Amino acid sequence: MKQPKIQITDSFWSKYRQIVKDVMIPYQWSVINDDVKIDIERENANAFRASEKSHAIQNLKIAAGLAKGDFYGFWFQDSDVYKWLEAVAYALRYAPDQALQQTADGVVALISQAQEDDGYLDTFFQIRAPQLKFQHVSFSHELYCMGHYIEAGVAYYETTRNQLALTIATKMADCIDAHFGPAANKMHGYPGHPELELALAKLADLTNETRYSNLAAYMINQRGTKPNFFAEQAANNEPLPADFPFGEPDDNGQKYFQNHVPVRELKAAEGHAVRMTYLLTGMAHVARQTNDASLQAACQRLWKNIVDKQMYLTGGIGATVAGEAFTFDYDLPNDTMYCETCASCAMVFFAKQMLENNPDGEYADVMERELFNGTISGMALDGQHFFYVNPLAVNPEASALDPNKSHVKITRPAWFGCACCPPNLARLIASLDQYLYTVKSDTIYSNQFIAHQAKFGNDIQVEQVGHYPWSGTINYTIKTQNDPEFTFAIRVPNWSQASYTVKINGQPQKIALDRGYLKFMGPWSASTTIELVLDMSVRTTQANPLVSADLGKVAIERGPLVYCLEQADNGAHLPELSLAAEATFEVKNNHDLGLPMKLTTVSTTGAKLTAIDSEQLYQSAATARATIPAELTFIPYFAWANRQPGEMQVWTRQQ
Amino acid sequence: MKQPKIQITDSFWSKYRQIVKDVMIPYQWSVINDDVKIDIERENANAFRASEKSHAIQNLKIAAGLAKGDFYGFWFQDSDVYKWLEAVAYALRYAPDQALQQTADGVVALISQAQEDDGYLDTFFQIRAPQLKFQHVSFSHELYCMGHYIEAGVAYYETTRNQLALTIATKMADCIDAHFGPAANKMHGYPGHPELELALAKLADLTNETRYSNLAAYMINQRGTKPNFFAEQAANNEPLPADFPFGEPDDNGQKYFQNHVPVRELKAAEGHAVRMTYLLTGMAHVARQTNDASLQAACQRLWKNIVDKQMYLTGGIGATVAGEAFTFDYDLPNDTMYCETCASCAMVFFAKQMLENNPDGEYADVMERELFNGTISGMALDGQHFFYVNPLAVNPEASALDPNKSHVKITRPAWFGCACCPPNLARLIASLDQYLYTVKSDTIYSNQFIAHQAKFGNDIQVEQVGHYPWSGTINYTIKTQNDPEFTFAIRVPNWSQASYTVKINGQPQKIALDRGYLKFMGPWSASTTIELVLDMSVRTTQANPLVSADLGKVAIERGPLVYCLEQADNGAHLPELSLAAEATFEVKNNHDLGLPMKLTTVSTTGAKLTAIDSEQLYQSAATARATIPAELTFIPYFAWANRQPGEMQVWTRQQ
Repeated sequence: MKQPKIQITDSFWSKYRQIVKDVMIPYQWSVINDDVKIDIERENANAFRASEKSHAIQNLKIAAGLAKGDFYGFWFQDSDVYKWLEAVAYALRYAPDQALQQTADGVVALISQAQEDDGYLDTFFQIRAPQLKFQHVSFSHELYCMGHYIEAGVAYYETTRNQLALTIATKMADCIDAHFGPAANKMHGYPGHPELELALAKLADLTNETRYSNLAAYMINQRGTKPNFFAEQAANNEPLPADFPFGEPDDNGQKYFQNHVPVRELKAAEGHAVRMTYLLTGMAHVARQTNDASLQAACQRLWKNIVDKQMYLTGGIGATVAGEAFTFDYDLPNDTMYCETCASCAMVFFAKQMLENNPDGEYADVMERELFNGTISGMALDGQHFFYVNPLAVNPEASALDPNKSHVKITRPAWFGCACCPPNLARLIASLDQYLYTVKSDTIYSNQFIAHQAKFGNDIQVEQVGHYPWSGTINYTIKTQNDPEFTFAIRVPNWSQASYTVKINGQPQKIALDRGYLKFMGPWSASTTIELVLDMSVRTTQANPLVSADLGKVAIERGPLVYCLEQADNGAHLPELSLAAEATFEVKNNHDLGLPMKLTTVSTTGAKLTAIDSEQLYQSAATARATIPAELTFIPYFAWANRQPGEMQVWTRQQ
Repeated sequence: MKQPKIQITDSFWSKYRQIVKDVMIPYQWSVINDDVKIDIERENANAFRASEKSHAIQNLKIAAGLAKGDFYGFWFQDSDVYKWLEAVAYALRYAPDQALQQTADGVVALISQAQEDDGYLDTFFQIRAPQLKFQHVSFSHELYCMGHYIEAGVAYYETTRNQLALTIATKMADCIDAHFGPAANKMHGYPGHPELELALAKLADLTNETRYSNLAAYMINQRGTKPNFFAEQAANNEPLPADFPFGEPDDNGQKYFQNHVPVRELKAAEGHAVRMTYLLTGMAHVARQTNDASLQAACQRLWKNIVDKQMYLTGGIGATVAGEAFTFDYDLPNDTMYCETCASCAMVFFAKQMLENNPDGEYADVMERELFNGTISGMALDGQHFFYVNPLAVNPEASALDPNKSHVKITRPAWFGCACCPPNLARLIASLDQYLYTVKSDTIYSNQFIAHQAKFGNDIQVEQVGHYPWSGTINYTIKTQNDPEFTFAIRVPNWSQASYTVKINGQPQKIALDRGYLKFMGPWSASTTIELVLDMSVRTTQANPLVSADLGKVAIERGPLVYCLEQADNGAHLPELSLAAEATFEVKNNHDLGLPMKLTTVSTTGAKLTAIDSEQLYQSAATARATIPAELTFIPYFAWANRQPGEMQVWTRQQ
């Protein structure tokens, strides 16, 4: 069975995809060319100095010998250009644009000029310190940046057949392969920030060159072995200059890099959340390519750890800003977490690889949670403002006055000095079609409810129609010729498995779920219709009691969406609100709450503690607090912070 | 009416006072002389490097020309010696010790030798950078250290009449007075860390020298005026060397120092909590000395802000480790706070000054809360291990694995590189007699229930007997001659004002409370007995609903003690425990729980959520969580962390 060609027709997602094409890509192009005066915001007061401009294209021009000047920006600034190029590659598939393609061809040519003869490309090192290439890969991001180019080059070649774009990628991979590997004369290392592994796996898929997947496998297997490669580099190589923007990892840094133990020995997801999930994405892909059962088992174990013990309801991961990292099982504070947009994107990448290895609705369930919640919450509905950090509870006073919450922004800034999240979202949304299906031998798994038309070769065409996430009715039309042999599997989300209906050609059916999927094996007529009606009842959700942050609280969900309370609809002091134990909910479709989008909202009558500012701080609990009835209005989490700044919370106390 | 001479006979506090005299003072003496190998622990992973030794006496010897070598330790290390001397001064009053006094006399002589002819003394600057004296007082701590000496010198002179001890203090004050003040040729500055102000006020009381109180008043009034003194010093003076252990304040540092606005314009307690409360202590004292109503009004306003909006139930202040600072009203997280032991000590100092200005039971209530909870929690029951940070909820896993909670220790370390808290506790406990009474004109206010004998001149003797904090029965015997004219006022704690009994000479009385005090105006026979019986019922306490951290939770109190749950008595996962809405409590006196002290404990049957590790992270709230009955055992908060490390919490969910 061939991979499908897909045209997304979904009204919800088409708006986002149009924003990516019409707003984000031109905007990011202006940014990386320093053509637009932008209000660049630091993503983290503790991290780095604010940048005044991107300079990313200019860095490439300087490295190419086309301009004079010094490197400027973060030392991994190259990746901004590559992620832009990757997003363009995907966008051109659903919105052909000759002018944009010419611009991108020009960028490919520039990148080619900047690339050295041996395939090396990292403008920071080329301009500032060519003698230090590959000598301090812990924080150097050389392998990370080249990984991002390889992803972009693969995508751009696949869209445009621009051979140069692919040649740059293979030259890079060959360069890295020449320097790293098991041979005695090579470096026995791996990237400080995983990304190259998943990129090499993609390149191997495209080129059928096992050398690339083997190199990725080597780096994955080498990670965490003794002696520690980063420590060896720090000890033995020419030291980093004092004025460099990065140094060597400290003794405690190894968990941050997930290289304190070999990856198969990791008991839980640890360290920097994006590094962890990029690594896992590469591991899962390489496990499939190299048929490595123990590596797949490690992926499965770490998947379960994240999903069952370290993931927020919104799909967010990374419980602490310190190191943007995982902490420990069930530690999920709602107001100090990191929940980086990039990390939620990476969970989508990871889920896709897990589906490819072993189709199970659980992976697609998490993918859905990320797509409809933790990823797109990173983007304002105008497509021009972005969150790095996606909190589950916000108090503007705390963000302003508690230094430990200064990373929790209450409005989305326009851009970041370290601009990883916005282009990551852009490339995810632009490539959304890649996440709809998993095709394994003779089974087509439909993972997501995002309306589209798909062609699986000449014989099979599928149309999915619906108004997800607002409506739970999804209609498939499957057109075939000559009754081909195949199974069509449709995921029933875990939240609807207790209640849904399915009809084939109008006839109600009872079909047992197989690992979360309804499976239809034919016979196939010229046109088969399948109607799936999911249970869109409002759900109240509780967390495992080991999550102390959520004890006594519930969250509201409907369909794939997590809901939240905002001050704009519910007044200040949201923590004082509570839901009735047996709450009844009113659902309002196309509700206009002054947001840029009409939404399905959820309302209920709850209670509010009457707070009196002037009273004493502590008093006898024998005096029951007075409550007054309060109308609670919940909006989808992804839409928060699109009005005036105010409080927000996902988890609400229950009476 | 004269200030009383007091002998504390109280069994609870005598143990602590004996520990101070027999353990802490000798131990600290060994430490400051580098005579003992100690396990010095960093108080804050983010702050400074760990110290390997104190070197504080050696620094003085080097400055005095009696030894060769370089300065070592924190640049404010001198204050360790001074706080030790102050504690000795107080301890000698209740435990005369000729050998100790000779040792202390020797320290005074050494300090005198280290002091320069003009009165200046700061060994860091004398040894390292004499050209920079008083040039960068924002972080220099010169005025802070000299302030601590002045406090010590006053105390030591008052105990021993060692004239040299006082002369050093007046020379210091004269030196500072020569350099700082309103005159055009003086510096218009004030200390970066308040302390000198309260010390000058004490010196003025002792010497009747208004120049000292006027200098303190000047520094208080100058604080926060424009142009900013610290910024001026940074801009105009010889810069600090790059290798100095401190730098200039950054732009955001002014709130940290409480000098962003004049002190009368501070709307809320802000910045570094110990700086704020040391400043307030000096302000309240100086307001009395200079009869400054607007300054007293500022103290009153900031007192109310702290007590009504920024103080933990334990009396702890400082809601964030970042800057060890206040954050904003009602922001009282239980597991990330600072609640420095020193800050609770400072609240006792502040409360005493407020009582002196305007006797009101509210101040003594807070003083009691601090004495029985937030101060002594800083000390292990062995007197040799200490907390800087006094949390209200602890999870050892979080302290180990969440960098934002790494400052929350689960066991008391033996000593700190920055050793402010242990000697602060020592001097507070050793001077406890100073906090029992406020004498205003013809009224004696008995503020605390700490058994003792007191002589108010020849005519009036008071004995207080009781077993507080375990028992609520307090017996006074007041012996007088010739029926003198005076009022004897006894505080009834706010927690008992709804229910208490009082008998005079065995006869029940009904007396209205006057600002929290029962007032007896005589006539006085040769011996009058007063029996006060407070309501020692177990209390459940709730926080203002604006304190989101405590919503849905209650705390247990009994008498002056806040209680807590520890894992040692209640198993792991304390947040899963809950109290019944109408809980009944069992009180067990002299309960042996394997602690170094038998305690009155509180027990009740509550419930525990049944947590299943392996279940999914989120599930429908429609599935009610199963609970099982659980016996909850609460111990006094001050006694926590004296057994094996484990969880602890003050606030517990209520069903």
